[in-house]
Amino acid sequence: MTRERALATLEAIDREMVLLSHISGVLVWDQEAVPPAGVDERAAQLGLLDRKMHELTASDEMGELLTILGASEHQEEGDPSLDDRSRGIIRWYYRTHDRSRKLDAGFVQRFSETTGKAHQVWAEARSTNDFSLYEPVLSQIIDLVRQKADAYGYAKDPYDPLLDVFEPGTSTAEVESLFSVMRTDLQEILAGCADTGPVDDTFLYGTYAQDKQASFANEVLDAMGFDRNRGNVGISTHPFTISLGAHDIRITTRYTEPSVVSPLFSSIHEAGHALYELGASNKTTHLTCLANGASFAFHESQSRLWENMIGRSRAFWSHFFPRFKEYFPIQTEYVDLDRFMRAINRVRPSNIRVDADEVTYGLHIILRFELERKLLSGSLAVRDLPDAWNEKMESLLGITPESDRVGVLQDVHWSMGELGYFPTYALGNLYGAQILDAMHRDLDVESVVASGDFHPVRNWLDEKILRFGAMYRPKELLERVTGAPLDATHFRRYLENKYLGSN
Amino acid sequence: MTRERALATLEAIDREMVLLSHISGVLVWDQEAVPPAGVDERAAQLGLLDRKMHELTASDEMGELLTILGASEHQEEGDPSLDDRSRGIIRWYYRTHDRSRKLDAGFVQRFSETTGKAHQVWAEARSTNDFSLYEPVLSQIIDLVRQKADAYGYAKDPYDPLLDVFEPGTSTAEVESLFSVMRTDLQEILAGCADTGPVDDTFLYGTYAQDKQASFANEVLDAMGFDRNRGNVGISTHPFTISLGAHDIRITTRYTEPSVVSPLFSSIHEAGHALYELGASNKTTHLTCLANGASFAFHESQSRLWENMIGRSRAFWSHFFPRFKEYFPIQTEYVDLDRFMRAINRVRPSNIRVDADEVTYGLHIILRFELERKLLSGSLAVRDLPDAWNEKMESLLGITPESDRVGVLQDVHWSMGELGYFPTYALGNLYGAQILDAMHRDLDVESVVASGDFHPVRNWLDEKILRFGAMYRPKELLERVTGAPLDATHFRRYLENKYLGSN
Repeated sequence: MTRERALATLEAIDREMVLLSHISGVLVWDQEAVPPAGVDERAAQLGLLDRKMHELTASDEMGELLTILGASEHQEEGDPSLDDRSRGIIRWYYRTHDRSRKLDAGFVQRFSETTGKAHQVWAEARSTNDFSLYEPVLSQIIDLVRQKADAYGYAKDPYDPLLDVFEPGTSTAEVESLFSVMRTDLQEILAGCADTGPVDDTFLYGTYAQDKQASFANEVLDAMGFDRNRGNVGISTHPFTISLGAHDIRITTRYTEPSVVSPLFSSIHEAGHALYELGASNKTTHLTCLANGASFAFHESQSRLWENMIGRSRAFWSHFFPRFKEYFPIQTEYVDLDRFMRAINRVRPSNIRVDADEVTYGLHIILRFELERKLLSGSLAVRDLPDAWNEKMESLLGITPESDRVGVLQDVHWSMGELGYFPTYALGNLYGAQILDAMHRDLDVESVVASGDFHPVRNWLDEKILRFGAMYRPKELLERVTGAPLDATHFRRYLENKYLGSN
Repeated sequence: MTRERALATLEAIDREMVLLSHISGVLVWDQEAVPPAGVDERAAQLGLLDRKMHELTASDEMGELLTILGASEHQEEGDPSLDDRSRGIIRWYYRTHDRSRKLDAGFVQRFSETTGKAHQVWAEARSTNDFSLYEPVLSQIIDLVRQKADAYGYAKDPYDPLLDVFEPGTSTAEVESLFSVMRTDLQEILAGCADTGPVDDTFLYGTYAQDKQASFANEVLDAMGFDRNRGNVGISTHPFTISLGAHDIRITTRYTEPSVVSPLFSSIHEAGHALYELGASNKTTHLTCLANGASFAFHESQSRLWENMIGRSRAFWSHFFPRFKEYFPIQTEYVDLDRFMRAINRVRPSNIRVDADEVTYGLHIILRFELERKLLSGSLAVRDLPDAWNEKMESLLGITPESDRVGVLQDVHWSMGELGYFPTYALGNLYGAQILDAMHRDLDVESVVASGDFHPVRNWLDEKILRFGAMYRPKELLERVTGAPLDATHFRRYLENKYLGSN
């Protein structure tokens, strides 16, 4: 087979893979509408699609195509003479094929069955605040994850191959070193914030009509450039972003939380993800595996940049606060912009990661990263996890959760066997700050944001990051965008500047 | 390969087919939420699933399995010594395999592309009331349908193989003969109704709060036994029933029509279909091709039996009308049960099939059946279709549509290439009346319905019809249930009894 022919075959398989994964997306989107008795079959439907996708990537045919295209362990992108687009596609399939060949069918089924049943057990344990219910299945999962790391193989650290699934090319040692700097930075800034006195944010917890909240959020999404011709917004129990098609990107929100800004910032966060998906799917990448983020941390950098660095900035609200007051004149009667800004940027240690402010958020991640590594190495037994969690909360954040429900049981990730995922959330903050500094070199970001017309910001992000999708390795893309490797000092300076008023 | 092994292989393929068709169902269910730019890819996703299903049924392997199982043209169910369940599955695959082998891939693609683009053209033609827009593509479709009939093959009439897709085993000559009797019956009863004087149904067109309409409809659906553990209700532009899983049957309604009873009877109609789907999916048939109706006409018999024969009966409303008055005391202040019954059973010729009463409905179907046959034989050219439509409306119903929009352009079916489908709607009425007569032999139907506890009716239908799903040929099932072949006199007697007060 010629190389041209192999490439055409790979692209045809790729198109089918993308369609199948979008079809899965439709099934996941619809999940909450499935009546109780239908839940098992929906899982079987998703399982069938997974099997079809696995067959396409794990096949001998795929191995042969990749060999013809020159891909190997030290040349994942295949022949260097190929164009960037082809090399990006080849890399994606080389990595997926390689991983899928390392796990036998029996293991994959055990993993999927164990995590499948673990979800309900975890939910039950959390709602009854009883870790002992969860312990047996979590122990099984940790064993399986350890086996998976062994099967994938590693030189130094069993955490490396797990992290590599979510953040290709980044090692555990690199994360450890970045987090060690970030830990000190965040704790110092947190201490600085404590000196600025109490904040009264009670007005955020008043009664705000849901339809007006939605209208205001829609104005913000429109300003961000969330394209209704290519996406829409739904309601779900937990907010998420999902691609049901190259031109069918959907986000969800919820209105069950007491604070009026929770659904709003959640929508901005998800719209940040959606803008990435929308930008990553373009003429060059349409219906290919490249129409994705460069990595989980890169994806998170976009959601956090929009949510926190833009959405919680004074420039943003200098434009939007008058509009917010028009929507909610009674609730904000005695609230001026200064008070509003203090309320939405209140910093204080709290138990729940997803509700954490941007200063303490990274400490929640460091806690999980450290516990995951100990669980994996066996130096921490699952039965000792709740105590270890509470001790780390005390040492990192200075508080102890009043129950496991708001402690070790709060997150779903471990029940899904997804060790290695959490670090990408904090890396997203570091990427975001470094990208923002690069943007500052080209744009007067504050003036643009304060104008309420975000086109220049969006166009910059699109030009520098989004349009490439997953074409380049995340480290390479970051260097292209910012001219330097990842460095925690950008995030520190951003936080100091915002919270301590110094440069 | 042994027969046992072949049967097990067939069942494994069958399970995958059912999962794939349910996955398609999810995509169709979600269709109205797709943003404009996403429409093309959604069609491609459905096309991919169709292709997967086509590959499974048209394969050489399937042909070999069916041969091993003893299936042939004159023995579609395979070896007579097999059990009914296996024979039902074999028949389904024999028929599908046989049809799919008779059409080559190029034809299938042309058919699908032409009908795909025809849908928009038809919608545009209807909204602008311009048949000339639709004429060229409809001509292409009629040509393609004729080629399809030729490819399927037939002894006497090209309409036979088309009808056989929807109503297996029923010939055009049989339908012609039944419809000839039905035409006379319906015209006589219609004339009789005209003598009973005018009906004032203006109160049905008042303002009725949508949430109360939904609550009342839910009470009716609950009484019918629509199981919320296995299904739910949504809103869409056109009401439909769809299976997204063996235990995930959904119906839709709409509240855009001016009469308060339109959404209600539409919901009862769809719930009738849903009860069939729910009953057809049971321990014996779960996740097999048998978990379907025995035929389109059998399916329609259930929806029409519930909507008209039960839902518009005096017995039904002797129970539900007091409740309806509780929901809507102001709108029904001067309305008693007699007036309500006259209003919801008003008979008069009208243009739109889906809004027709149960007396004139069959005449709309006869019109379409006759025109389809002429189009197919070539004795009627597509350009002469509007005139032919209007002439038949005059001769059958005594009215002439004021525009093509409410005439020849009203239905979507021809744009989908689905000739042979319409007769099943009217056959559904005939089946329904014959089934109701059989039910009368075992149950005092009026007393049961008047009690508001429909369990005995539902259990009878389940025991006699639903639980078998598609296991038996429709003619065989009707004989099992009613002891006789299909006969139009049951429907005539039902209508006479109801509308002319005679037996």
